[in-house]
Amino acid sequence: MTTPRYTDLVAALPATVPFVGPEAQERARGRAFAARLGANESRFGPSPRAVAAMTRAAADAWMYGDPEMAELRAAIAAHHGVTPAHVMVGEGIDGLLGTLVRLTVAPGDPVVTTDGAYPTFNFHVAGCGGQLVKVPFAGDAEDPAALAAAARQVRPKLVYLSNPNNPMGSHHPGAVALALLDDLPEGSLLVLDEAYVDLAPPGTAATPDPDDPRLIRLRTFSKAHGLAGLRVGYALAAPGLIAAFDRLRNHFGVGRVAQAGALAALADTGWLADVQARVAAARDDIARIARDNGLVPLPSATNFVTVDCGADGAFARAVLRELIARDIFVRMPFTAPQDRCIRISCGLARDHAALAAALPAALAAARITAG
Amino acid sequence: MTTPRYTDLVAALPATVPFVGPEAQERARGRAFAARLGANESRFGPSPRAVAAMTRAAADAWMYGDPEMAELRAAIAAHHGVTPAHVMVGEGIDGLLGTLVRLTVAPGDPVVTTDGAYPTFNFHVAGCGGQLVKVPFAGDAEDPAALAAAARQVRPKLVYLSNPNNPMGSHHPGAVALALLDDLPEGSLLVLDEAYVDLAPPGTAATPDPDDPRLIRLRTFSKAHGLAGLRVGYALAAPGLIAAFDRLRNHFGVGRVAQAGALAALADTGWLADVQARVAAARDDIARIARDNGLVPLPSATNFVTVDCGADGAFARAVLRELIARDIFVRMPFTAPQDRCIRISCGLARDHAALAAALPAALAAARITAG
Repeated sequence: MTTPRYTDLVAALPATVPFVGPEAQERARGRAFAARLGANESRFGPSPRAVAAMTRAAADAWMYGDPEMAELRAAIAAHHGVTPAHVMVGEGIDGLLGTLVRLTVAPGDPVVTTDGAYPTFNFHVAGCGGQLVKVPFAGDAEDPAALAAAARQVRPKLVYLSNPNNPMGSHHPGAVALALLDDLPEGSLLVLDEAYVDLAPPGTAATPDPDDPRLIRLRTFSKAHGLAGLRVGYALAAPGLIAAFDRLRNHFGVGRVAQAGALAALADTGWLADVQARVAAARDDIARIARDNGLVPLPSATNFVTVDCGADGAFARAVLRELIARDIFVRMPFTAPQDRCIRISCGLARDHAALAAALPAALAAARITAG
Repeated sequence: MTTPRYTDLVAALPATVPFVGPEAQERARGRAFAARLGANESRFGPSPRAVAAMTRAAADAWMYGDPEMAELRAAIAAHHGVTPAHVMVGEGIDGLLGTLVRLTVAPGDPVVTTDGAYPTFNFHVAGCGGQLVKVPFAGDAEDPAALAAAARQVRPKLVYLSNPNNPMGSHHPGAVALALLDDLPEGSLLVLDEAYVDLAPPGTAATPDPDDPRLIRLRTFSKAHGLAGLRVGYALAAPGLIAAFDRLRNHFGVGRVAQAGALAALADTGWLADVQARVAAARDDIARIARDNGLVPLPSATNFVTVDCGADGAFARAVLRELIARDIFVRMPFTAPQDRCIRISCGLARDHAALAAALPAALAAARITAG
């Protein structure tokens, strides 16, 4: 007998990780990236008020954060017109998804998602022994009808829908996402990941009855609010489900510094509006660069632009590789036919200039290596 | 059928939380505490270098932290004379315990700990459906012989030992903790929680073979390093176990700000030495205040002093209540006979002055209400 003894579930898990960070790539390359455009971070940074709040909180970091996160939850609740009992805060959407999956998914339980949607959700489902049932994209968008059809077949505990979608940048009106609720079988919870919704057109955010027990919405400070490195996300759901998180969550997991930064970021609506405008301009600029190189930018409701490289996955992977070799950090969709694309996060003018400078040679090299 | 459907395990869990924070108490009281001496936080604060590092990182918080935490893990490894493959960093010891329990404990699996030891460990075991087997304290210390005897009976996946112990402040030489390894049955992993070991006498920290697969050591930046509000802890274990964390952990859970603060704190050995001296003086001061009031301070290898109130749990609970009513936040052990004590964290001179001012009246009131 060896020590330690893992659970049978863990022993059977693959040792994969959801994402390799750019820092690991930089260590492997022995060279820093010139433009960090791969992780859909907000290159425009956090609100200066959030930075000031984190700075103040740093000196107070000897104190644990409030495990009930009352002040932050109250502010989020006011922002959304719900009560604090409708709000849970966690260590990013990733942390919240991890707890949500543990709350609901036992070994063998089916879960429905889209093939090529958020891999960290799949990672958590696998970690609980859930069985992933995947439907394809429809025209580079997640397909509520296909999700509903699969759900009616397997009666899953969870149905995952991101709106807007990562990695494709597509979106549905919030009403379309909510209409899915009535097509799901009883007992299936819709997990609506709205990580990018602050950057989407008006009407994309769902506006459900906050007490509807069939839905949980997920939001984050990592995208529009520019606080990916702080690790704060939140869930909006009926109070019963919110209260259930207390049974499993790491109660002190969102610390004092993180709570302070998120609270200040939420309050700085002027900064958010400025970021929204800069993201819109940056999307246009990336689209222009793509077109200048004979590529097709897809419409985006997010802080990235997914660019159709015009051929197959092998070619897009070659483009990606050649961009990385030229110090441009980008990522791409994992599954066909979406893997004909690369995904470029919105950046500053100098990031886009580096991209524009590298792309022609990267494409030329890719045409040789993939050709 | 209701939505969502929880797992059978979750449905059967009690809705308890490991600790109620002082902020929740302040909200209920409608009044702030005058002295925050209940959560074993480091009242002496974090290193100014850590504060500066967090401030710098705050402006960079738009970037996710390195999910491999390479720089921090390398620094920790160098500090302990091991390799980065022996080090995992997580969202506090709480976060690491949560993942460790999930890695090893399936429903029904026995786990051995001490009745009255760290409740958050028990919370995680319950969250995985583990069966807690508890042995009593021996003379206000955890009892390696009793833990070993229980382990030989039930062959647990995990055996928890904190050294020094919270809530009693007692400790064993590190060699005694390590000797337990040879008394455990094959397949039992010793979870050695050394959260307070930076504040203990020389020789308390275990110095095992870092490749011993029977042991995992847990450390934190929350205590001596004064960063409870940042949420960074680490595990030291053989590389196989460390690698297994990747199967379940929240890979981006320790963000950029947290990694930066912890890295700077680890490097500031002068600050740590200063805190150690101030904690030693504060322990003496709390002991003096206790004796001045006819109470018996227990020896402490931590940043708190557990004070024997000289009667039963009902009396100590009354003292606690009366101190809280006088704006002094303290906590106490949960189980008899250790619940004859209250637990007072080391504070600044003004915190101790507030304690000394409140304690006589609190004791007098407790003698009436409990008498």
